[in-house]
Order: sequence, then C-alpha cells, then structure tokens
Amino acid sequence: MILNCGVTLEKRKLLIQLDGDPQPSVFDQVVAYDAGADVVMSYGGVTPEAIREKVHGAIFTRGPKDLHRTAIFIGGSDVALGERLLAEARKHMLPQFGLRVSVLLDANGANTTAAAAVRAAARHLDLKTTKALVLAATGPVGQRVALLLARQGAEVRLGSRQASKAAAVAEAIRAKEPQAKLEAVAADPAGDLSTALAERTLVVAAGAAGALLLPSSARRSCPTLRVAIDLNAVPPVGIEGLGIADKAVEYDGVLGYGALGVGDLKMKIHKAAIARLFDRNDLVLDAEEVYALGEGL
Amino acid sequence: MILNCGVTLEKRKLLIQLDGDPQPSVFDQVVAYDAGADVVMSYGGVTPEAIREKVHGAIFTRGPKDLHRTAIFIGGSDVALGERLLAEARKHMLPQFGLRVSVLLDANGANTTAAAAVRAAARHLDLKTTKALVLAATGPVGQRVALLLARQGAEVRLGSRQASKAAAVAEAIRAKEPQAKLEAVAADPAGDLSTALAERTLVVAAGAAGALLLPSSARRSCPTLRVAIDLNAVPPVGIEGLGIADKAVEYDGVLGYGALGVGDLKMKIHKAAIARLFDRNDLVLDAEEVYALGEGL
Amino acid sequence: MILNCGVTLEKRKLLIQLDGDPQPSVFDQVVAYDAGADVVMSYGGVTPEAIREKVHGAIFTRGPKDLHRTAIFIGGSDVALGERLLAEARKHMLPQFGLRVSVLLDANGANTTAAAAVRAAARHLDLKTTKALVLAATGPVGQRVALLLARQGAEVRLGSRQASKAAAVAEAIRAKEPQAKLEAVAADPAGDLSTALAERTLVVAAGAAGALLLPSSARRSCPTLRVAIDLNAVPPVGIEGLGIADKAVEYDGVLGYGALGVGDLKMKIHKAAIARLFDRNDLVLDAEEVYALGEGL
Repeated sequence: MILNCGVTLEKRKLLIQLDGDPQPSVFDQVVAYDAGADVVMSYGGVTPEAIREKVHGAIFTRGPKDLHRTAIFIGGSDVALGERLLAEARKHMLPQFGLRVSVLLDANGANTTAAAAVRAAARHLDLKTTKALVLAATGPVGQRVALLLARQGAEVRLGSRQASKAAAVAEAIRAKEPQAKLEAVAADPAGDLSTALAERTLVVAAGAAGALLLPSSARRSCPTLRVAIDLNAVPPVGIEGLGIADKAVEYDGVLGYGALGVGDLKMKIHKAAIARLFDRNDLVLDAEEVYALGEGL
Repeated sequence: MILNCGVTLEKRKLLIQLDGDPQPSVFDQVVAYDAGADVVMSYGGVTPEAIREKVHGAIFTRGPKDLHRTAIFIGGSDVALGERLLAEARKHMLPQFGLRVSVLLDANGANTTAAAAVRAAARHLDLKTTKALVLAATGPVGQRVALLLARQGAEVRLGSRQASKAAAVAEAIRAKEPQAKLEAVAADPAGDLSTALAERTLVVAAGAAGALLLPSSARRSCPTLRVAIDLNAVPPVGIEGLGIADKAVEYDGVLGYGALGVGDLKMKIHKAAIARLFDRNDLVLDAEEVYALGEGL
Repeated sequence: MILNCGVTLEKRKLLIQLDGDPQPSVFDQVVAYDAGADVVMSYGGVTPEAIREKVHGAIFTRGPKDLHRTAIFIGGSDVALGERLLAEARKHMLPQFGLRVSVLLDANGANTTAAAAVRAAARHLDLKTTKALVLAATGPVGQRVALLLARQGAEVRLGSRQASKAAAVAEAIRAKEPQAKLEAVAADPAGDLSTALAERTLVVAAGAAGALLLPSSARRSCPTLRVAIDLNAVPPVGIEGLGIADKAVEYDGVLGYGALGVGDLKMKIHKAAIARLFDRNDLVLDAEEVYALGEGL
C-alpha cells in the first residue's frame, strides 16, 4: 500500500484467528487489533480437519521473507481442542522449504490469564515454597495455573466440586511435568473448605463468570493465606469480598487481586504475545513460552 | 499503529456487527466502512444467548477512556430479533465500572430507512395533520414508518394484504405510543384500494423488493394525495409509475420519491449514526434517536 | 479517512469474497490483501440463493462513481458452484442505472492456476501444435487447463482414473468450444500409462494435494515429451522426480515445473486480476479474461 505522503508500508500483518467455538471470540479480535495486527481473519467452528487448508493458505501465499507478516492465533473456549488444533497446525507447516508461520495458542485466554495470575503471585511469594490452592482447577484457566505453578516448584492442590475430576487433571499435568507436587481435593463452596485451604499461602479462583467459589468466612479462617487471586471478571466475584479491580489490595492481611487487576498484566502478556508472532515465522507460543514473555515485561 | 510519516493514530474504531441472519449483511458492512469504522467484525446467526460473550469481548478489552472506539451495530432482517439482541446487549454492559460501548439498532435498515422516509415526507407535509397510508405496514420498515409518523402526530392507516396482521402491528405500536392515531386496513394491490386510500395525503410503500403495492390507477384515483414514497429499490417498484431515483418528482400533482431518492437521506442518516457511535461510549441509538439524528442533517 | 499527515484517502477498496465452501479460503484472502484490497469481507457456505442480497449490498451502498472501489471475488473448491454463483451475481447487477461491480471467478484457484500453467507451457511450446495430456482432467484446475489449451489450438487428451468421467468433461468443454480437439483416456497411475502418454509433448498434472499421478518410469518412457507441469504443491508431488519449486528444470530432456515454480506466475496473475477489479466497475473476469491478463504480464 502506498500512501500519498510518500511512504511505502510493508505487507500487512495478517492474523488468522482459528476458534473452536461456533463464533470466533470478539475479545481475541479486539486484543489482536490493539496489539498491532493489521487484519484479523476470523474463523469459528474450526475443527482439526479444517486446519490443513488454513495452514496451506498461510504458507503458500507469501514468500519466506514475508511469512513473519502472517501468523495464526488459536482460541476458543475448549483448551483441549485448542491443543489439538495447534498440534495439527504444526503438522502442516513445511519448514524444510522455509514455509511456516508463527502460532500462538491462547484458547479461552488460558495461557495469558494463567501466566498473568502466576506472575502476580510471584510478585509477593517465592513460588518454590508456595502452597497453592487452585479453585475450579478443572477449568481451562485453572488447569494452566496449576501447571505453571507446579513448573515453578509450587506445591499445588487442585480443587473442584468433584475430587475425581480434579484428580484427572492432576494426572494430566503429571504426564507433562513428572516432578509436579500435586494433590486433588473436593472443594464445594457451599460445604466445608477447611481441608482444601489447610496450610495454603496462595489461592487462585479460576471459575466461570459469576460463580462464587470462596466465601469470606472460609477465606478468613485460613491463617496461612498471603495472596488471593480471583480471575472471574463478572460479579458476583469468585472470592467473596474482593473487588474485580483489586490489584494487591489488602484484606485482613491477605493481598487480593481481582480479574481486572490481574487483567492489566494478562492484557500486556496477550498483546506482547501477538506482537511477538510478527517478529519471526517460526515461533510456537504455548503455556511456557507465554509465561516466559510475561517474565520479560 | 505508527506510520512512517511520523503520525501516531488513535486506537482503531472497531464496529461489532451482530446480525440475526445466517450471513451478516454486506450492505451494513459497506456503509460502516464508508462511515469511518476502521474494522467491522461481522457475525451472522447471532442469537440473544450469544450476546453476553460479544458484549464482554467489547467492554473488557479496552480501558474506559478508549471504549468509545469500540461499538456495536445490530442488524439482520428480523427487527423483532434485533430488538431482543439490543435489550440483551444493554443487560450485559457494566456502566457502574464505566464498561459499556455504544449500540445502534438498524435491523433491516428499518430505523434509518423509516427515519429517512418520514423526514422526506416532512419536507412537504405538516406531519401533525398528515393522513398517511403505510403499505406493507407489517414489514420491518413499514412498522417503523408507522411508529415514527404516529409519534409525529400523523393519523396512520396501516395496510397489509391481511387486515388482521395490520391490526396486530397497530396494537404493538399502541403499546409503545398510547396516543397514536392508528387504523388497520386490508390492502391487496390486485383488489380495490379505494378504502385504504380514502382521504390520504401521504402514502408510503414499504414492501419487499420487486413487489408492486400501488397500481397507477389507484394512485390517480386518490385526489387528496400529495406525497408518495416508495422504499423498494428493485424494479418493479412498489408504487407504479415512480422511478427508483425519484426525489420529489411530480406525477399528476403528487410528489414522488423512489428508494434511491430517499436512499440519499437514509444513507446520510445511517452514516451519521455509525459515526456518532464513536463519539461516546454510552449511546443507545434506536428509532427515535436515529430519527433525531436525521432532523439535524 | 483522513490521516494527520494531511492526506485524504479515497474510499476503501472493498472485496466481497463469496466462497461456496463452509469456511472461506485463507489463501484467497491473503492474496487479496497483498493485491491491494483494503478490506476483504469473507463469506463461506454461499449458495446461489444468497447472492442477490450480497450483490444488492454491493451496488446500493455507493454511488456509480465509487462502485469501482467495491468488487466481488468468487472462490471455493467447487468450480461448477462458482460458475453458478457468477451467473447469479451477473443477474442481479443493474447496469441500466450504472449499478454494478466487477467480479472475478477463481473458484479453487482454477482460473489463475490454469492460466499460469498454460502460460508456462507457452514459453517453451507452440500451443497450436502441442499434443497435451492433462492428468486429473476432471478436477477443477484440470478442466480449466484443458479448456484453455484447447482454445489455444492444442490437441488435448484428458486423463482420469475413469475414462467415462474424462469423457463427460470433454463433452462439457466441447459445448463451450466446438472446435476443440479433445480425447478422453483412462489414466491410472498404478497401471499402464503408455496409451495416455503416446505422442504427448506436454503433460500437466492437476491432481489433488499429495496424489502421485505420473511415475518417473512412465515419464521417461515417453520420448516426445518436452514439458511437464505439476500443479500439486504438497509432497509427494504429482509427477515423480520433479521438485515443487522447479521452474523449467531439465529432467532427461524434459523441462519440469513444480507447483511453486508455476505458482510465481499464478500468484502474479491472481494479484493482477484482483487489482484489475478496482480499475472499473463493469468487469467479469472468467477463464479467458484471466488468461488474457496473464499474457500481458
């Protein structure tokens, strides 16, 4: 594109948004534009079978020297599907001909939100000695928070209404990270949370919008607690008493973070990850790479 | 985005197009671009259930000071569905945190077309004393024309092939505007239209593309008629004898408007409404607000 | 749009991508952006019934003097469907009012790929005296290659696993081009290809990605062969022994082209065709017009 002011712009930065949900996320599109993508090409209802055509469309349209101006973002609410889409996308690149594009996986915002939550905790706690409780650990964000905390050396208790579901997630994390110190526990907000909270210095609530996971009374009954992070942006919040805009606000000696408080950092990480995609054409940004980006901010 | 000529542009103006039809309207997208939206994010097949995620994607991605650069347009051919989408969208804004974006409802172009038709009539008639016949008054545009005319004080006769359907629309308008002077009438273009036309000074044909609603003979048999407005852009026109580009063209003492003639004003109103969305983040532009915008042009 | 550097840009170049496949092609979008479209409005799952609304959206939104800034691209993997979409699109233009936009048909890249393949052959052969074998001639690209070669005067043998399917395609081409010199033949890559290859100076393989159509031994057993063009971009290639990046590379006296080798020219033709759409508002670019564009490059 040539503007009349005499400037030749480079090829536009095209982001191919592949979303497993029927309609591609508005959130991810807005962030992509604000992170510098010139165009977001959005696809909903994406299945693994549909990936080959998309990757070929990405890698066969521009020469290797311009392929860092095309990238793929994998989103959608289903993290497991996102992981399959990512694996499929990698399979159809042709690196032997220099024909590949960079890919970011952030299904359900799981990688960026989890990275931001763990970074926020790391501001106040030494993660190597942290004893964490992740509430709604079976959800997409909860799984990633647990994984990243475990990788940083924390002792992680995974809480879910059904302990068996939490145990299945613990098993999946252990498959990736055999050294992980993990424990599954039943955590019903309407029941007794004292076992789940015992000895915890960090609690992260990663539940669905509008779901209360930790009542004030339970939070106050845990004397070891130092940091409480709530990732639910829609009132009522997940950790009772916290505000969604809280950013290290003290409540009875506990530093509280709300979704918008963590959200600043999540958004910075998300945007940095999108921007990073256009630096090179050979990146694969998954949980660890996204967390590493967060460390640099 | 920084251009090499040394200019920093503001955040891009993002318009989220929510369309109840399976595929989002081309028309609305083109107008949105011409009205100054930088990016139109288009969604088809939008249901009330899908609105929450869209609104959250809009309000949680930019800080309050930039939210006037994100807006929502509600389109689609089904005006009743559009109204439900609008109601749902309003429900998920979080004004208490400054987290909201402006919204324009123009399902089926009904608000802008109806506003333009009524503005065109107002150039020649005092609406307070106008006796109008709206043909195809049960359609999405016809309903809005009848509503706006009634709100301006006109006496409005609603015509439809089946009088019972026209009566149902009259009932719905009366629910919104108890003072409305309304009457339902059977109006079959192949039959006798003399009852429908009796004493009318204004006739507006708001039928489907290519449907003839008022034969020349019927039009000429109505001595009181002063203004005839046809909103059908595809030949054959709805009011026989008029041209689609007519703009106050006289036929036997009647001033005729065709769809393209009214279309100029409709387009101005439509573009002004889109542009207005990006002035502030707290607007809700429905029939009356759109009509008011038309008065200012 | 007014940039701060004091420049007023013209109305944006909007390309409406109509794709018969469930999801619109990534490839076509990237090429459209690189060819100068400012915005690509992408639609998948497009049926002939959906065309009217799209064309009306295109022609009723801008005045005749700006309609060359709106254009339609028809893609998708089904060339026959693409042709129906094109016919339908033409039907809904209103040239009598100056209300039309230019249209390019390139379903499955068939027109641009076929044009590029035939242009590549014409660099080395006099097409009037060429004896060609088109493998996978029943596929969308193969059909176009056969049609264009026949129109240039070549003698064309159409090969397919089932001779009856090849015969049906020959029949369809003859309906468009009664002078065409055509012959249908069974061509099973696992069987004997000597009849299919007899006396051929040109072979074009237009099969699906990853399908081997011509083994090395068969190729080497044809002494008359001068040029071999393989349009399959995904290994294994369609003509054994050729490289996908080959561009007139010699193999035993035969000049070989791979998909990427032809791809350079295909891409130039594709981009030129897109750019051409925005020069005027009355173009219909189908096989012949696209081939003619290729002659000028």
